[in-house]
Amino acid sequence: MGDPAGVGPELCLRLLQDADVARLATPVVFGDAGVLRRVARQCGLAPPVRIIGAAEWQMAGGKIREPAVWDLGAVAADAVQPGVVSAATGRAAYRYIEAAIAAALAGQVAAVATAPIHKEALHAAGIPFPGHTEIFAAQTGAARSCMMLTSSQITCSLVTTHVGYREVPRLLSVERIVEVIELTAEAMRRIRGRPPKMVVCGLNPHAGEHGLFGENEEDRWIAPAVAAARQRGLEVEGPLPPDTAFVPARRLTTDAFVCMYHDQGLIPLKALAFDTAVNVTLGLPIVRTSVDHGTALDIAWTGRAQVSSLVQAVLLAARLAVPSARDQASLEQPVSADM
Amino acid sequence: MGDPAGVGPELCLRLLQDADVARLATPVVFGDAGVLRRVARQCGLAPPVRIIGAAEWQMAGGKIREPAVWDLGAVAADAVQPGVVSAATGRAAYRYIEAAIAAALAGQVAAVATAPIHKEALHAAGIPFPGHTEIFAAQTGAARSCMMLTSSQITCSLVTTHVGYREVPRLLSVERIVEVIELTAEAMRRIRGRPPKMVVCGLNPHAGEHGLFGENEEDRWIAPAVAAARQRGLEVEGPLPPDTAFVPARRLTTDAFVCMYHDQGLIPLKALAFDTAVNVTLGLPIVRTSVDHGTALDIAWTGRAQVSSLVQAVLLAARLAVPSARDQASLEQPVSADM
Repeated sequence: MGDPAGVGPELCLRLLQDADVARLATPVVFGDAGVLRRVARQCGLAPPVRIIGAAEWQMAGGKIREPAVWDLGAVAADAVQPGVVSAATGRAAYRYIEAAIAAALAGQVAAVATAPIHKEALHAAGIPFPGHTEIFAAQTGAARSCMMLTSSQITCSLVTTHVGYREVPRLLSVERIVEVIELTAEAMRRIRGRPPKMVVCGLNPHAGEHGLFGENEEDRWIAPAVAAARQRGLEVEGPLPPDTAFVPARRLTTDAFVCMYHDQGLIPLKALAFDTAVNVTLGLPIVRTSVDHGTALDIAWTGRAQVSSLVQAVLLAARLAVPSARDQASLEQPVSADM
Repeated sequence: MGDPAGVGPELCLRLLQDADVARLATPVVFGDAGVLRRVARQCGLAPPVRIIGAAEWQMAGGKIREPAVWDLGAVAADAVQPGVVSAATGRAAYRYIEAAIAAALAGQVAAVATAPIHKEALHAAGIPFPGHTEIFAAQTGAARSCMMLTSSQITCSLVTTHVGYREVPRLLSVERIVEVIELTAEAMRRIRGRPPKMVVCGLNPHAGEHGLFGENEEDRWIAPAVAAARQRGLEVEGPLPPDTAFVPARRLTTDAFVCMYHDQGLIPLKALAFDTAVNVTLGLPIVRTSVDHGTALDIAWTGRAQVSSLVQAVLLAARLAVPSARDQASLEQPVSADM
């Protein structure tokens, strides 16, 4: 359900009613029923029908066959102020994530799609993670993982994610870059149904222009990683100058871009595919996707937030969870739309 | 004319014939007539008609009233290999730039528009500048300058330009950021004919998310610079999270983005406006614009390079040189299309 004070609750209410989602999956919202009811009243949306308590979930969680809410009772509905995140809402959001990860690891849900959380609320609650991706990696014990954003226009995966600008260079290594290339190749093969063509960006302007700019990061780490990935049979090119990597002609022939830092990938992605991209965490033992937007506190609880990104996130989660999902009338397991 | 081994010569040949340019300006190519003749033969383009030697230029340079070539004799035409840059072509390219800057400072040309040079050729020739912008700043004695790229879709100016990724943070300061905001405001006021609305990007992911990422570069340098610029009456917002700064809705209401580093501005610019953007050096005592592409060595001397970017660069140069140029039938001074 995401942060209770953000747009997550209203998006979940819309999701429970979504016809496209219903055809592919059974959404279960991990959240607070009290908050959802309050938001439904305020926005004029349909309130949730099927509410599941802790006892019922333990008994029958994995066998839910209709859109439902697992009421975790993590926050007092009356205490939540729309658009105002706090330690209490951050703690609740984290509680939904923990429960969703546990349910996915236990096979009670086939995949997890997350609504937006607020990093400052998380921080205020004393949760030591900068974002979803890092929580999922830690709590599933993933040996390697990365964040990928995908849309019909452009797909980018990130070698480094939520770290300061200055920290990026020391986090680069041949091993890490190869890892992200491999994780991206595997995910895009499932999404495209064929081996993908990938591009790896340099770190410096003009990819260092053969040592003129930067400290040879391209020659030391990126070029060897690309060579290693090619030796393993992957179709990958680079390091390319970052500014020309994303020009229209190149985008047409590239299934995914491997980017060295957050904004190198997210600037072109959001410029070209704002509101339609889905965030996927690669390398986890469970399937996890997310919306591509934040808590949008300025319009929280107004009913104005668009559900399209969450719907896309759930549909992609279903596709990744069951490779033949597109052709199936129903899934064996519900898809949890939580946090 | 740019690097003789790149696409510069063929672009200059097309420029000399361009009807849109002829209406607004008198183009004078600062280059080598021998190279232009060889390229004209090879590409099946019209050879240059009016060739001016050093003596004639000294006598009548500022009074040329027809498209012309100032033959600087900087390289032996037969020695140039298409697509192969060298110390000799780098030296020649630099010679064209020097002559163009001198002519502009002397008032012999109204503005300078540059064709692409190759940084490695410049480097091989022992020229200690990473690019055009730095050469123009040094040789015109500009106290402050910056690079701006402008197109109908998006305009970005850069606080730092051709430096390695790691060097960016230590080059940021309140003074430098205010300088770039002011230079951008001044140029955009001339281009738009009204006070522009500007956005300033943060350095870190999510603009640091209030200190969660990075080392508070946003609070230390960027926010104070934005505050200072607003106090001086400029319409400017920021620091904004870089990844959402360039989304479609924001672009519609923003005349120019002030970016902290090369790829922060050039990634969205080239993703959205490849081949139509013009590069302008702001803050110089002369007007200087440039194409937005490189030497394209792979297609040099084939006649396949598009002249649109150079034409746009010359037209913008004419507009910036004489504010009422759009409405004038002719200019008082020729516009040099050199380097």
